[in-house]
Amino acid sequence: MAYDGTDFAGFQWQPPAKDRTVQGVLEAALARVAQPSTRVTGSGRTDSGVHASGQVVAFHVAWRHSLADLQRALNAVLPQDVVVLELAEAPEGWHPRFSALRRHYRYTVLNLPLRSPLERRYAHLVTEPLNLEAMRAGAGTLVGTHDFASFGRPTQGDSTVRHIYSADWQQDARRFTFDVVGNAFLRGMVRSIAGVLLRVGTGAWPVERVVAVLAARDRAAAGAPAPSCGLCLVEVEY
Amino acid sequence: MAYDGTDFAGFQWQPPAKDRTVQGVLEAALARVAQPSTRVTGSGRTDSGVHASGQVVAFHVAWRHSLADLQRALNAVLPQDVVVLELAEAPEGWHPRFSALRRHYRYTVLNLPLRSPLERRYAHLVTEPLNLEAMRAGAGTLVGTHDFASFGRPTQGDSTVRHIYSADWQQDARRFTFDVVGNAFLRGMVRSIAGVLLRVGTGAWPVERVVAVLAARDRAAAGAPAPSCGLCLVEVEY
Repeated sequence: MAYDGTDFAGFQWQPPAKDRTVQGVLEAALARVAQPSTRVTGSGRTDSGVHASGQVVAFHVAWRHSLADLQRALNAVLPQDVVVLELAEAPEGWHPRFSALRRHYRYTVLNLPLRSPLERRYAHLVTEPLNLEAMRAGAGTLVGTHDFASFGRPTQGDSTVRHIYSADWQQDARRFTFDVVGNAFLRGMVRSIAGVLLRVGTGAWPVERVVAVLAARDRAAAGAPAPSCGLCLVEVEY
Repeated sequence: MAYDGTDFAGFQWQPPAKDRTVQGVLEAALARVAQPSTRVTGSGRTDSGVHASGQVVAFHVAWRHSLADLQRALNAVLPQDVVVLELAEAPEGWHPRFSALRRHYRYTVLNLPLRSPLERRYAHLVTEPLNLEAMRAGAGTLVGTHDFASFGRPTQGDSTVRHIYSADWQQDARRFTFDVVGNAFLRGMVRSIAGVLLRVGTGAWPVERVVAVLAARDRAAAGAPAPSCGLCLVEVEY
């Protein structure tokens, strides 16, 4: 699935169900086209305001027609800020979260002196000049298996150890993108990493501080996370 | 100025002032930072939902400080979907509409089988395959001085004759962009042209029909205009 997270209170339905969530609108769509349906499970919870171009979800559904028909029916009743990109039948026991091997997130920053109204929903504005090489160096120190307790809380279980396969920044004119691929991420971890690396990029923090934050294993060490508008779940690999 | 037109009922304030307009929010911002202020005049009215990355406006204002201070003050009180990119003092008698020599509009189309939630606000989705060469050929027939009565109504005066300096399509993967530069445009003219050229692109109409529409001098000949979300006023030249 892809969605514009701006007008959602995150992926996951939370009781009481007052907030608009991706899971909520998808379950409502399923209930309309294929009653009775069960709950939807996602590969992970994206926070409020976080986007996705490749979220993966699973659900059980009673449906006698083709998968293409189900996709068309769902997209016809889903709101315009959500779309089902692809549907496939999964083997029994397959789980979008537990079966996932890698997740790819992208954090997008616009480095401009003034806000850009046409890009504000999907990128975080940083008005101070950014040092690409410093941010790349900082990102590099996070690659590997580490205890990321400074960068987030586990969504379940106690372990805060995660493996990051790759973490790097690219610059295209005034647009900086941070691509990070990991086996899994703690709650708020990518935004927290982006916040740290952007402070390195503006020169507020030296590159060495990234290692110090990692070593601290303390949420307070990372400082404020970068805003959710810049974050997008790009792909989940199985 | 730049603005995201999605949540505006166009550029121009219309009585009764219930709708949110770009002119309305700019005049409200001016009234807050620099009373008393006069009305704002634009280079042209963008329709409801049409964006701008280079709209030019003029206003009289009583201000004792620097232009940079005025710009900062305006951007601080303007909503996030509008920004003042640059301010300059204009000579008396300069008019953003009458002094303009050329306007550059861009129409953006996403050619995908499914909607793209992260791009839907700034591009029009066409799900049928598009023929770039046919659209370029159709656009080329509009270049020059013509009576564009089939494509729109004049905003003032009676003449429907306009000069188009250039009109061409580019393709970058599944994104098609139509750039058109003219001395001035009739009301709805660019969206009307885009609608005609997209029907040529899908093969619904032959390329020759563009000339026939132009020759008809009849609004009905052009058919439905393309949606406003794809249109952006890029630049006004003086």
